[in-house]
Amino acid sequence: MSQSSFQEISASDFFYRNRDIAGFTNPSRAIFAAIRELVENSLDAAESLKIPPDIYVRLLPVGKEDNGSQVFKLRVEDNGSGIQPRFIPSAFGQVLYGSKYKLKQMRGTFGLGGKMAVLYGQIMTHKPAAITSSTGQAKIYSFKLMIDIQRNRPIIVDRKVLINKEKWRGTIVEFFIEGDYLRAMPKILEYFKQTAMVNPYANLTFVDPKGRLYRFTRSTTEMPEPPKETLPHPYGVDVELLQRLIYISPHKTIVDFLKNHFHRVGNITAKKFLAFTGLSPTKKTKKLSREEIVTLTQNLKKFKEFLPPDASCLSPLGNDLLKAGIMKELKPEYLVVSQRKPSTYAGHPFIVEIGIAYGGAIARKNSFQIYRFANKIPLLYDEASDVSYKVINAINWRRYKVTPDMPIAIVVHICSTKVPYKTVGKEFISDREEIRREVANALREVSRKIHHFMSKREHVDKERKRISIFAKYLPRIAEFSTSLAGKETRPDIKKLIASVRKYGKEE
Amino acid sequence: MSQSSFQEISASDFFYRNRDIAGFTNPSRAIFAAIRELVENSLDAAESLKIPPDIYVRLLPVGKEDNGSQVFKLRVEDNGSGIQPRFIPSAFGQVLYGSKYKLKQMRGTFGLGGKMAVLYGQIMTHKPAAITSSTGQAKIYSFKLMIDIQRNRPIIVDRKVLINKEKWRGTIVEFFIEGDYLRAMPKILEYFKQTAMVNPYANLTFVDPKGRLYRFTRSTTEMPEPPKETLPHPYGVDVELLQRLIYISPHKTIVDFLKNHFHRVGNITAKKFLAFTGLSPTKKTKKLSREEIVTLTQNLKKFKEFLPPDASCLSPLGNDLLKAGIMKELKPEYLVVSQRKPSTYAGHPFIVEIGIAYGGAIARKNSFQIYRFANKIPLLYDEASDVSYKVINAINWRRYKVTPDMPIAIVVHICSTKVPYKTVGKEFISDREEIRREVANALREVSRKIHHFMSKREHVDKERKRISIFAKYLPRIAEFSTSLAGKETRPDIKKLIASVRKYGKEE
Repeated sequence: MSQSSFQEISASDFFYRNRDIAGFTNPSRAIFAAIRELVENSLDAAESLKIPPDIYVRLLPVGKEDNGSQVFKLRVEDNGSGIQPRFIPSAFGQVLYGSKYKLKQMRGTFGLGGKMAVLYGQIMTHKPAAITSSTGQAKIYSFKLMIDIQRNRPIIVDRKVLINKEKWRGTIVEFFIEGDYLRAMPKILEYFKQTAMVNPYANLTFVDPKGRLYRFTRSTTEMPEPPKETLPHPYGVDVELLQRLIYISPHKTIVDFLKNHFHRVGNITAKKFLAFTGLSPTKKTKKLSREEIVTLTQNLKKFKEFLPPDASCLSPLGNDLLKAGIMKELKPEYLVVSQRKPSTYAGHPFIVEIGIAYGGAIARKNSFQIYRFANKIPLLYDEASDVSYKVINAINWRRYKVTPDMPIAIVVHICSTKVPYKTVGKEFISDREEIRREVANALREVSRKIHHFMSKREHVDKERKRISIFAKYLPRIAEFSTSLAGKETRPDIKKLIASVRKYGKEE
Repeated sequence: MSQSSFQEISASDFFYRNRDIAGFTNPSRAIFAAIRELVENSLDAAESLKIPPDIYVRLLPVGKEDNGSQVFKLRVEDNGSGIQPRFIPSAFGQVLYGSKYKLKQMRGTFGLGGKMAVLYGQIMTHKPAAITSSTGQAKIYSFKLMIDIQRNRPIIVDRKVLINKEKWRGTIVEFFIEGDYLRAMPKILEYFKQTAMVNPYANLTFVDPKGRLYRFTRSTTEMPEPPKETLPHPYGVDVELLQRLIYISPHKTIVDFLKNHFHRVGNITAKKFLAFTGLSPTKKTKKLSREEIVTLTQNLKKFKEFLPPDASCLSPLGNDLLKAGIMKELKPEYLVVSQRKPSTYAGHPFIVEIGIAYGGAIARKNSFQIYRFANKIPLLYDEASDVSYKVINAINWRRYKVTPDMPIAIVVHICSTKVPYKTVGKEFISDREEIRREVANALREVSRKIHHFMSKREHVDKERKRISIFAKYLPRIAEFSTSLAGKETRPDIKKLIASVRKYGKEE
């Protein structure tokens, strides 16, 4: 009798077998994914210290081109926080190990990207990755690493310690990767351009395989406040999280527990909630039964008086920066931006920022141009599956006097302590109901303004036509009337037209 | 100085934190995902024994409805192979543990779906899942399980052994899950319908929360040959795989190694390849240097004389079944199907089957209706990101006299020992170059035929118009000519028209 055989695989092995789900689909996507993952780590590392990022990326061809693919040496260098030596091997050689598993707005979320880049490089070239890093202290640490994929552990091939005379701080990652640069090029350049657009305080330098230099220079050294780590918001807490918190909590009574482990729950709110759920404030959390925990979880969702999450832990772009970025990049005739109030999904605060731009340098196509950003990184692939795309296409635009063939660009930025990406490759955001609603509301807000603009435009157009008719016939009528009346001086046409125009304006 | 803190998380914790990537995005998707994952496990379990599957799914409401969401008891029962008791706890309570990590055409691929369903149920309801299974031997084993998410291990809450008097064989999974059935309903019913369409030998029964019964009865008991496990094909082997094979291989010389571990490599091919790559056939594999392994990997890709993969390990639908399924489901006026020869991507054989249907009961919309299947399961979400969608939309359809507003349905089935899904939730297939090419070639093939059909149709249309003009005027001309010639019997118009028609046909 045939019987299935079972086996256990490591997380590293899982992502090795299924690298498509991490964005490493083909030689072109792989090279794009490797660059973006490392650049995003670097941006996070600099921002965590409120240092304007200086990031240098070089892609050097080292192998012969064969059927589009070629081996490159990829180097990504930053001036970020650096990594303590004891963390370096696992940070680059062990999947599901990282500093990203926090409730904090970060570009990285899965603790996976850097490792996947190294892993992908390794399985094609069988060469170790070199990581050099210093936190700015006395020493610089340099590792050569490979990944033991079956055991999901780093293999340290070589380790060096250097004296850090110049107090250098940052991280340099260098490894070999097979990829198809020519096909990836448009996306890579677009990636840098859009990244520069929403990170105006960063210097980005990219040297491509032909030695061409692309430089995106910062326009400001002003840095946003680094995002802070935050507590989970009571809405959307599940039983698992509640149990974990109860297990690790030093706070014994449920009222102390609620006050200390949840975002925006103070003494008064905690007591009100406990009255709502029918539990005594002095009840010991460790004594809660399974049923009580389930009821508590359900009631945390139902109670209406929790304050909405505080945006202080998030680092949105802000209207000015968003406006400046769009104006600089897209040069529209008309632009309106809007930042929504913070909202929450599954206990995670998020903010939707939106811009809608019309005319100017924006090209006329068969559909709107959509620019998607999440935590200040551009999302360039799989647009049609993104929640924003769906919301944009579900709106009845005719109501706003807008049609898809108009030169219109829509920019959506979603920032959150946890962006609900649909894929590990961070290509698009899933259609969580709360996010869909916020994007829709933000769109409606800016759409009303563009409606107003369109109406005014239409009005101005009509007025222009009306005045041009007056301007055409009034002189003739004046001439005719003058001769008919036997007079010589014609009336002042300009005044007449002006009076008509005034009337038209009042209309 | 701020310093990042690092931590390691379990695979189970990773998917708990990132359930969006496994398809458990919102209460509506979650309930859809849970049902499909368990149904697909059941279909695999029955097919592996060549037993026509009997699958019973029941969704029973147990909680009050609140804001669209409700707690349900989901039961999925099959007559499949059953699971040996020692494997049951991990098969349902440990992520990245399973029987699916093989080179074999299966519906499941990630060894994740069943666990995610149980995990999602647990974090919302905090209740254990009940698994009952027997391989048809003397005993039935029944487990109550929960998942220790942080440690990624099953917790056995209860275990029972029953005497299997009736020699029952199969598996019953029953657990509680919170979801939004009303919103999920259209997709769930569509899922059953399309699953029945490509699995005509299966009985599917679904009892919905209102007690409504949906029954899809098998139209044949003939089962396809169960797919076989296969060896990796030399194209697309990477260094990691080569090293693993060398490590576990009992075959010492490289010629024996190649013959025994790769698909369609016999003695002659192995020797030819070794001459091509410049290695002695008697060289010991364990003595290969790192550089030699890299060169060997590269040459395995470059060598042109490996035979294409053998389809015997795959279980495609076949033209007849595909045709029957489409005719039954879509009732078109015209249908053409095509099965491509087996091809390979990254060492995995795959076959593309395609059907294009016109008219009949197919509705006229603004775009083609696309039906996507992979390993005999329907893919219903995120169509626009799928490789097939992209290929279909990149084709210049006007060349084939086809426009998107015609009533046209396109059915694409991709079967493979490893379908390159882009998401763990198996919503869509990534754009691997080899697959894109095969889908495009298949499309071109059927498009030529539909072009022919369209031309003929156009021709017939024109002819009909031309003949109707003749039919209108010839009698009058005949009448007029008859009276003009002073005769009484008019000439036979039918003959005349027939002669004209003949001429038209020859044109």
